Amino acid sequence: MPYVNIKITREGATAEQKAELVKGVTYLLRDILGKDPQTTVVIIDEVETDNWGIGGETVTVRRARGQ
Amino acid sequence: MPYVNIKITREGATAEQKAELVKGVTYLLRDILGKDPQTTVVIIDEVETDNWGIGGETVTVRRARGQ
Amino acid sequence: MPYVNIKITREGATAEQKAELVKGVTYLLRDILGKDPQTTVVIIDEVETDNWGIGGETVTVRRARGQ
Amino acid sequence: MPYVNIKITREGATAEQKAELVKGVTYLLRDILGKDPQTTVVIIDEVETDNWGIGGETVTVRRARGQ
Amino acid sequence: MPYVNIKITREGATAEQKAELVKGVTYLLRDILGKDPQTTVVIIDEVETDNWGIGGETVTVRRARGQ
Amino acid sequence: MPYVNIKITREGATAEQKAELVKGVTYLLRDILGKDPQTTVVIIDEVETDNWGIGGETVTVRRARGQ
Repeated sequence: MPYVNIKITREGATAEQKAELVKGVTYLLRDILGKDPQTTVVIIDEVETDNWGIGGETVTVRRARGQ
Repeated sequence: MPYVNIKITREGATAEQKAELVKGVTYLLRDILGKDPQTTVVIIDEVETDNWGIGGETVTVRRARGQ
Repeated sequence: MPYVNIKITREGATAEQKAELVKGVTYLLRDILGKDPQTTVVIIDEVETDNWGIGGETVTVRRARGQ
Repeated sequence: MPYVNIKITREGATAEQKAELVKGVTYLLRDILGKDPQTTVVIIDEVETDNWGIGGETVTVRRARGQ
Repeated sequence: MPYVNIKITREGATAEQKAELVKGVTYLLRDILGKDPQTTVVIIDEVETDNWGIGGETVTVRRARGQ
Repeated sequence: MPYVNIKITREGATAEQKAELVKGVTYLLRDILGKDPQTTVVIIDEVETDNWGIGGETVTVRRARGQ
């Protein structure tokens, strides 16, 4: 029954990678806490780099500087 | 003053259905808890089926199998 | 399969009221969008009035002023 | 290490305004709570006006009425 | 730089299990998407069973019926 | 009408500091984006250090090592 929300920047994650992530997190919750995979929900949000800030700057600005 | 966030898969909910949902949830909070509708906020997120997982699989994969 | 998060101030909602809210929101999603109640998740967060702000003030301060 | 999520309606905020918001919130957390800007994360979600409700109505409907 | 929020019912997860979960999710994001573990944030919310609903009922009610 | 959620570790923020944070964020949104302070909601979550992970470890473990 767990609910997991993963936020990443929108930078080209493929459907296959997202499917792997869903599977991996679901089975981690089963293995560590005994949670039932059938009712584990995982939602992935892909966020534009203009809308994600770290260190007081947006990721767009950081990427432009080469970080 | 409540805040409600509803996440559903992006599969064709209309503006009218979303308006009904906003109204329904707002008045439920008034009827059950006496919350003021004027300051109740409801935000609906529509999530791509590639980005929603349940049972260790994405909804895209489940739909492809006919679930 | 919807996921709903409801945030209210912690001001004495009873277990019965919370159960009514869970039921009400779940069936609203079935009636308006045809969502399956069996996989609808509703999580209620009760937030201390010191930690909830509106109009630039915390609810604690507003309540002290009689609002 | 704080995490901040800001939700606004999608109504034309520019990349510059969003960058200012990221910077402003990050330094507010440093000034008030001594939090390290380097590890402060700020995520901005821009929400369609059909998907944002207040007062039991969507913002789309309110804007159409001139509110 | 990913941000992960895991919500589980408050039913006795230990500090060790939560530490394992943090580690597991962080390295999953590195292995699948190449994300830097140093800036991956994982927040676990433990939610009272009165405040978690599924199938139109709270978990408290389901547990009382033996589910 | 913005909604802001701030998550910090539970490490002694006072009611006064939280009130300052609510005020600061609310007026930042007014100054940068012209948002109405009266309908801006700010919710602060204070998270136990056992439940906050960064760099693959919980904050509890990092603090114990002196970080």
